[in-house]
Amino acid sequence: MTARIADVETIDVRFPTSRELDGSDAMNEAPDYSAAYVVLHVADDGEGTGDGGGTGEGDGQAVSEGHGFTFTIGRGTDLAVAAARAIGERAVGTSVDEVARDPGAFSRHLLGDSQLRWLGPDKGAIHLGAAAVINAAWDLLAKRAGKPLWKLLSDLTPQQIVDLVDWRYLKDALTPEAALELLESRAAGRAEREAYVREHGYPAYTTSAGWLGYDDEKLARLCREAVEQGWDSVKLKVGADLGDDVRRCRIAREIIGPGRRLMIDANQTLGVAEAVEWADALKEFGIWWFEEPTSPDDVLGHAAIQRRIAPTHVATGEHAHNAVMFKQFLQAGAIGICQIDACRLGGVNEAVAALLLAAAYDVPVCPHAGGVGLCELVQHLSVFDYVAVSGSMDDRVVEYVDHLHEHFVDPVRVEGSRYRVPEVPGYSAQIRRETLRAYRFPDGSVWGGTAPVTS
Amino acid sequence: MTARIADVETIDVRFPTSRELDGSDAMNEAPDYSAAYVVLHVADDGEGTGDGGGTGEGDGQAVSEGHGFTFTIGRGTDLAVAAARAIGERAVGTSVDEVARDPGAFSRHLLGDSQLRWLGPDKGAIHLGAAAVINAAWDLLAKRAGKPLWKLLSDLTPQQIVDLVDWRYLKDALTPEAALELLESRAAGRAEREAYVREHGYPAYTTSAGWLGYDDEKLARLCREAVEQGWDSVKLKVGADLGDDVRRCRIAREIIGPGRRLMIDANQTLGVAEAVEWADALKEFGIWWFEEPTSPDDVLGHAAIQRRIAPTHVATGEHAHNAVMFKQFLQAGAIGICQIDACRLGGVNEAVAALLLAAAYDVPVCPHAGGVGLCELVQHLSVFDYVAVSGSMDDRVVEYVDHLHEHFVDPVRVEGSRYRVPEVPGYSAQIRRETLRAYRFPDGSVWGGTAPVTS
Repeated sequence: MTARIADVETIDVRFPTSRELDGSDAMNEAPDYSAAYVVLHVADDGEGTGDGGGTGEGDGQAVSEGHGFTFTIGRGTDLAVAAARAIGERAVGTSVDEVARDPGAFSRHLLGDSQLRWLGPDKGAIHLGAAAVINAAWDLLAKRAGKPLWKLLSDLTPQQIVDLVDWRYLKDALTPEAALELLESRAAGRAEREAYVREHGYPAYTTSAGWLGYDDEKLARLCREAVEQGWDSVKLKVGADLGDDVRRCRIAREIIGPGRRLMIDANQTLGVAEAVEWADALKEFGIWWFEEPTSPDDVLGHAAIQRRIAPTHVATGEHAHNAVMFKQFLQAGAIGICQIDACRLGGVNEAVAALLLAAAYDVPVCPHAGGVGLCELVQHLSVFDYVAVSGSMDDRVVEYVDHLHEHFVDPVRVEGSRYRVPEVPGYSAQIRRETLRAYRFPDGSVWGGTAPVTS
Repeated sequence: MTARIADVETIDVRFPTSRELDGSDAMNEAPDYSAAYVVLHVADDGEGTGDGGGTGEGDGQAVSEGHGFTFTIGRGTDLAVAAARAIGERAVGTSVDEVARDPGAFSRHLLGDSQLRWLGPDKGAIHLGAAAVINAAWDLLAKRAGKPLWKLLSDLTPQQIVDLVDWRYLKDALTPEAALELLESRAAGRAEREAYVREHGYPAYTTSAGWLGYDDEKLARLCREAVEQGWDSVKLKVGADLGDDVRRCRIAREIIGPGRRLMIDANQTLGVAEAVEWADALKEFGIWWFEEPTSPDDVLGHAAIQRRIAPTHVATGEHAHNAVMFKQFLQAGAIGICQIDACRLGGVNEAVAALLLAAAYDVPVCPHAGGVGLCELVQHLSVFDYVAVSGSMDDRVVEYVDHLHEHFVDPVRVEGSRYRVPEVPGYSAQIRRETLRAYRFPDGSVWGGTAPVTS
C-alpha cells in the first residue's frame, strides 16, 4: 500500500482580537488575528507496494494528518483559504514517500502552476496559500518521522538541505555549491549546538508591551512587568506621531534601564526621509533596531535609511514576500537584522533559502512572530538555523507575544525570556479541534454562528 | 438627488485560449486569458440635493455603469474576483461627485483597508482586485464626462494630476513639487500634441508572430505577414532553449530585415547569469530590448543585467506590482524601457504615478498589452503620457496582439502599425453582455454550462 495525500481540508479561522486592540500598530489599526488553515489528510491506497522510505522511528507511519496555516488579520482570510485550496489540489494524489524523498521538488510543483502563478508571482494571496499547504506537508513529514520539525531539518545532510531550495533566482548572490560549503563547514558542531540549545533554550524578546493602542500608563505598567519577568529586549510600535513616539520611548527606556535592548517598529508607515527623521529623533534612547521603517518592497529605500541611521540596524522581512526580496536586502546592505516570516514566505523551503542567504551575508535572522501561531512555527526555524546553518545565537532573538497560544496542541514554552526547544513531533502548527469549531468564520460560536459539530 | 455607487457586480470571465496555444511562452505554458470583471452600478438616492460638479458635456450624467477589470490567465481568476468584491464593497455608498472631485482619495481609500492590506500589501490578488474596481470607477467618470479616458486625464490641471498619486513611498525619487513642475513645463504643448496624435495615431508593435508554442514554419509565415502588414517592430518569446532561440531569432531577423526592430521576451525564466548568456548569444541579431529576463521582483538583478547587455535595453514591468517597484527600477538604472500594466498596477492612479516617475527619469514607457482588453486600456495611458506627461513618442510603442478585441464594445483600432486614438467616452473597458454570458466561468456556454440569460 502507498500512503498518499488524499484530501485537503481548509478552514477560515479568525480570532476577534480587534475588540481589545491587541496587535494594533500604525498600519494595522484593528486586526483580527486569523489563519487560513490546512489539514492534509493521508490515506493508503490499495495499489502500491509499500515503497518504503520510513525510518521506523516512533510509530509515525500511522500519522494521517499534516496541519499548517498561513497568518492573516481578518478580512481577506477567505482569499488565502481559496488560494490554499487551489494550491492544495496540486498535492492530492502525491505519495507521502515521494514528498519525503524530495520536498524541494514537491514545493516547486505546488508553486509552479502556470495559471495561478499569474496572481503573484510568488507573492500575495496565492503565495500565502502555498505557504499553508507546504507548512502542512512539513508537519506531516515531521510527525511521520517522529521528530519536531527543527530536528528533522537538522538531521538532513548539507546536500539534502541545499536541495530544499529553488535556486533559479538566487545564484547571483549564493550558489548551491557555496551554500553546500557553508553547511558542511558547520556540520561538525551540530551535535554540540543541539545539546546547548536543548539545555539553554533560544533567546526571545517581547512585543507585548508596546502596542500603539495602549496609553502611557498601560505602556509603563507593561514595561515594568517585562523587566520583572526577565525580558532583556522590548519593542515598541511607532510611526503615527513623532511627538508621541519620543514620549513613549522615553518612558520605556527609563523603565527598562540602560542595560536592556529597545527596538522600534513603524510598520511601513513612513517614507525614506521621514524614517531618517524618526531615527534621528529617537536616537537618544539607544535604539537597537528600527523595524519596517517604510514600504516592504523598497530595497533601495531601506538601503538609504540603513546608510543614514547606523549603528541602529534596519530590520525588515515580515512582509518580504519571497527569497528574491531577501536576496536583494542582503546584497544591498539594506538590513542589519533579517526578519523572516514562516507564513509570508512560501513555507519551510523558502524560509530555508532565506536562512542560507542570511548566513552567507552574516546577517542575524530574528524571525517575525506573534499573530496566531507564528511563535509556534518560527522557533523551529531559529533552532534549525542555530544547529545547522548560521551556527550562532549572537544578536539573535525570536519575537514573542503572549496571546492565543492556548489554542495550540503543542504551544510554545517560553521561560526566563527564552524559548524552550520544542519536543513534540511535527511543526507545532496544529490548532485544537474545539478552537477550529468555535472560531471558524463566519459560522463559529465566537462569531455568533452555530458551526456544526464535526470531528 | 445624489448619484452614488450602489452596487458592485463581479464576473469571472475566461476565454479558452489554451486550446490554440495563443499566448504561450516559457513561463506561461497554456494560459486561458481571463478577466475579473467589475461593473459599478450607480443609483440616485432621494436624500441628496444634487451637489453639482457635472460639466454638462454630453448627457453623461445619465450614465449609470462603470466597467473595469483586471487581467488573469485562467485558474485563480476566482481569487481576483473575490478580491474585487471585497475591495468594491468599500466603494458602495460613495457619491460619484465625491469620486470625481478627488479620485486620489477614492483610490487610497479602496487600497487602505488595514485587514485586506495584509494579503499584499499592494500586490497579488488583492491589488489585482483593487485595479479592477479603480479602473471601473475611471470608466464611469470618463463616461459621465463624455470623454475617452485619455482626454479626461489630459484635460486635468497639473495639480489635479499630481493629486491622483499616493506619494507616501515615492518622494525620495520624485517629489510632488517636482512632478508638478514637470507637468507644468509640458502644459503649453498639450493642444498641439493632442492634434498630432489624433491625426497620426500612436505607434504599436506586434507580439502575434512570436509565441513559443508556434513552430518555425508558422513563425516565418507570421513574420512575413507582419512585414506585409506594415509592422516595424516584432517581438519573440524566448527562454526555454537557447539553441531554439538562436534559430528563431535568425529566422525572424532574416525575414524582417535590418531596418525593423526585434525584441525578445524571456517571461522571467532565467537567472541573472543565464540572462546575460542569452543576450550575448542573441546579440548578433540586433535586439532592441530584452523583456522580463528574470524575476520581476529583482531590481538589483535587472540592474546587473542592464549593465552587462547595453546597448540592448532591459525591459520589464508587466509583473511589477506597484509604483515602489517602478521607482526602484528607475533609481537603479535597471531598465531602459518601462512596461507598465494597466491591471497589475492598482488601476489608473498608480499607472499615472509610474508615468510620472518614468518621465522624470527620462525612460520611455512602452506598456504591456495583449491578453484580453489590455490593448483597449493602455492605449489611453500612452496617449495621455504623450499629450501631458512625457510629451514624446520617441522610442515608444504600445504592444498589440490581434485577438479577443471582438468582445469589446469599443475595441481598439490599429491601422498601419499605429493605434488610432479612442473617441468613445470611457476607458474602452466594456465587454459585450453576450460575451460575459457565454464566457462566464464555469457556467457559460463556452465552458459547457448553461448560464442564465440575464440582462
